[in-house]
Amino acid sequence: MPQFEKHIFICGNQRPAGHPRGCCDPVGQAGLQKLFKQKLAERGLKGRVRANQSGCLDQCEHGPNLVVYPEAVWYGGVTPDDVDEIVESHILGEKPVERLRLKDSCINALGCEHKPRRV
Amino acid sequence: MPQFEKHIFICGNQRPAGHPRGCCDPVGQAGLQKLFKQKLAERGLKGRVRANQSGCLDQCEHGPNLVVYPEAVWYGGVTPDDVDEIVESHILGEKPVERLRLKDSCINALGCEHKPRRV
Repeated sequence: MPQFEKHIFICGNQRPAGHPRGCCDPVGQAGLQKLFKQKLAERGLKGRVRANQSGCLDQCEHGPNLVVYPEAVWYGGVTPDDVDEIVESHILGEKPVERLRLKDSCINALGCEHKPRRV
Repeated sequence: MPQFEKHIFICGNQRPAGHPRGCCDPVGQAGLQKLFKQKLAERGLKGRVRANQSGCLDQCEHGPNLVVYPEAVWYGGVTPDDVDEIVESHILGEKPVERLRLKDSCINALGCEHKPRRV
């Protein structure tokens, strides 16, 4: 079993309360990553799909964020309630959850509908 | 500029000294990730290629480890002296550094030449 079939990187970055960019894991408990890990294990995907903690993915204004490789599908505003749907639809069913995807016009944008333009 | 052209995840996991699996960043200063970040910025790649801190990539016995997506090329035993070569050859030149690649027979293996078989 070389390579993970899918490798999910879930941002666990913390910033101080009130920071203008916000952050993905203000509580700092990696709750989303742990929940993905648990749900993947329950479906027998341990070792095939990895839910990895990551540092800042630099899409802070859209968080909590995660990205699924190798297909490079980005999600934003993910809550614990969304984890089952992402696992079922995307990870198992190869159908990304469109309502949670970050738009191409938002990813790495200097400014977008969620993010004031940097000056 | 939607998506990163390449997204490098560099393991910054720490374990206590003497742990049988070892760890990728015993000092806990993210030195390798910071060096990649600096070298990428020097080459004008900021925003196009991201050097991301990551949690444990689960290839501990081969560390320090990193993985480059979307191509899913894994490297092990990476030192600060290797960073320029990876950036020049792989990131800029699209030619992975073969001498540092993790073998398919090592990635996620239950046991390999570097790793005692788990019982």
